[in-house]
Amino acid sequence: MTAQQTDPWLLTPGPLTTDARVREAMLRDWGSWDSDFRAMTAEMRARLLDVAHADPAEWASVPMQGSGSYCVEAMLGSFLPPDGKALVLANGAYGQRAAKTLAVMGRAHVVIDKGDYLPPRGEEVSAALAADPAITHVVAIHCETSSGILNPLEEIAEATAAAGRKLLIDSMSAFGALPLDARSLPFEAMVSSANKCIEGVPGFGFVIARKDALEAAAGNAHSLSLDVHDQWAYMEKTGQWRFTPPTHSVAAFLKALELHAAEGGQPGRLARYSRNRDVLVEGMRAAGFETLLDDRWLSPIIVTFFTPADPAFDFARFYEGMKARGFIIYPGKLTVVPSFRMGCIGALNESVMRAAVAAATETLTEMGVRSAAPPASALEERRRHNAA
Amino acid sequence: MTAQQTDPWLLTPGPLTTDARVREAMLRDWGSWDSDFRAMTAEMRARLLDVAHADPAEWASVPMQGSGSYCVEAMLGSFLPPDGKALVLANGAYGQRAAKTLAVMGRAHVVIDKGDYLPPRGEEVSAALAADPAITHVVAIHCETSSGILNPLEEIAEATAAAGRKLLIDSMSAFGALPLDARSLPFEAMVSSANKCIEGVPGFGFVIARKDALEAAAGNAHSLSLDVHDQWAYMEKTGQWRFTPPTHSVAAFLKALELHAAEGGQPGRLARYSRNRDVLVEGMRAAGFETLLDDRWLSPIIVTFFTPADPAFDFARFYEGMKARGFIIYPGKLTVVPSFRMGCIGALNESVMRAAVAAATETLTEMGVRSAAPPASALEERRRHNAA
Repeated sequence: MTAQQTDPWLLTPGPLTTDARVREAMLRDWGSWDSDFRAMTAEMRARLLDVAHADPAEWASVPMQGSGSYCVEAMLGSFLPPDGKALVLANGAYGQRAAKTLAVMGRAHVVIDKGDYLPPRGEEVSAALAADPAITHVVAIHCETSSGILNPLEEIAEATAAAGRKLLIDSMSAFGALPLDARSLPFEAMVSSANKCIEGVPGFGFVIARKDALEAAAGNAHSLSLDVHDQWAYMEKTGQWRFTPPTHSVAAFLKALELHAAEGGQPGRLARYSRNRDVLVEGMRAAGFETLLDDRWLSPIIVTFFTPADPAFDFARFYEGMKARGFIIYPGKLTVVPSFRMGCIGALNESVMRAAVAAATETLTEMGVRSAAPPASALEERRRHNAA
Repeated sequence: MTAQQTDPWLLTPGPLTTDARVREAMLRDWGSWDSDFRAMTAEMRARLLDVAHADPAEWASVPMQGSGSYCVEAMLGSFLPPDGKALVLANGAYGQRAAKTLAVMGRAHVVIDKGDYLPPRGEEVSAALAADPAITHVVAIHCETSSGILNPLEEIAEATAAAGRKLLIDSMSAFGALPLDARSLPFEAMVSSANKCIEGVPGFGFVIARKDALEAAAGNAHSLSLDVHDQWAYMEKTGQWRFTPPTHSVAAFLKALELHAAEGGQPGRLARYSRNRDVLVEGMRAAGFETLLDDRWLSPIIVTFFTPADPAFDFARFYEGMKARGFIIYPGKLTVVPSFRMGCIGALNESVMRAAVAAATETLTEMGVRSAAPPASALEERRRHNAA
């Protein structure tokens, strides 16, 4: 995307390859108490609401220091009251981590675990909520990054609202690229991070929540640092973050939000990422690789490919071969079948994706791999799950 | 310090003015799973132990995402067991915040609060520990940034060890400039942040702890994100951070650690900061300002000055006048007496401090302030506290 690119392209779910202008925004220092930085915080908060089409009269965005998982924990600990009960919809590592986070906090929860191949569906949510009136909140993962599966958020939200429960969304790797419209989607709060589809650098994340939910969250949190209500109340009063903000990451994120808007906002970004994915999947399939997921669940965020069955294939060598050609890929995160992942997000375009496919083909040849086809058992497993 | 400096100098306790080379280290993107970044993490962890003279056979450093207060919470939640009890030594906002953090977590604690002017002393710690055998841990603030007071860490550590209790140190604004020597100081764990005396940018902090204490911390934490044991165990096993690291801040911090070593490590940095403070305090006193603290408790980190009594003085105008002249100062954080603060840390030297004093004098003249002397009542309060 930029003439200065000399480092490897990061085909990962984040940290991402960023635009050079985003990184250059970090060449200055800001005082966190100063009015200049307070204005930057205010602009960022307003722009985030714009991305979600969230009316500032009813919604607020609250940046939180830490990684994405910190921000998920902050959302869960702040919006699920200590006497509430969560239904966690899991189909991969991030759904499981949400459940583990609740377990460490000692908050009541149940899990629907769909494994690696399939999304939780609206009717399953309706049935679970009907069966357990104690459930107050549903926790959904928008795009499960461990497989790349795009979960059907709309039907989950409708089922949750129809049962009179509240929805908390982990939109970590989706927000800014996949639609999440506060005007039409019923939810209580969502969380995402600076270094995903908005294409900033890591250092913080943010919650977008209904103001009445933020009011009601007072006193819920298990942690001072991860208290979204406290952060929001202090920020509203002073314009400042409660504790030292990652000033340089915030400056980078503001530039990233500007570039996001210039690209046409969420629809523009979705178009580029979708094209990235299509070029990648088409090219990799032509080279003989197979995707974990059926086409209908493939996200434009990250794609999981089965590891080839050919005994000449070795993931560590494949990784190094790709890196030597200028591409950092990502290991798989599945429980059963060996796999690897290639991301479509960040400052990447289709020519980068084409070059990545060429690099994969070259690396296979270098390794003496004749076929990129996965073991028959992996394809059988995929067929079995999708037929179910 | 650098030819490129065009932004205001940050005379604040952090985020700080950084060296341009530190900021320029953020112009690249890194994959967090990649071996290059794992090597950066390993080097950073080793260098941190060096700064503390901590033997890698007995000690480990554990970086944690988030602000300094997140890292303090992580240390408290991980090393104080749920059935333990803490004695918090407070003399300002950060001691009070440690107590509040424990209260939110529901961990038993008592507080010795010395107000704004005076440090907790060894004999007070001994008496409190003798009186309450249930206390398992003492929590001490190395340099209390809200006043700038340098607390007598050695006598606190000796009193704690003599009573057979464990010491947890918040060395947020001191580590890297003030001595903290693991060979001679008895303590269990300490915490500091990337954007204080090592002069990195904000985004994470770190714990340095005894390995046996890290082992014993398993299962203590109230939070998954803020679990120091879990972060340590995962990092030892994989070389990676559990959750997305702030890659750019880590790269900046590595450069900052290199510059720290090149300046002569902690003694070199202490010498520059001490000179900064001496030039600042001498110049401001010559201009008629008075420091909150007696000389013996003045730290080389940040200095609190009383607000002048002259009715022509207005802090907001003073702040803007200083900013227009290229200096960002910091408001006071005292409970009783109006004050403001000026920091001595960051990529600043004595010529910057002299220029800051000149800017303060000019700003007073511009505002029509004839005398910078504080109200008699403030001086009387200071006298009363120090005589006690």
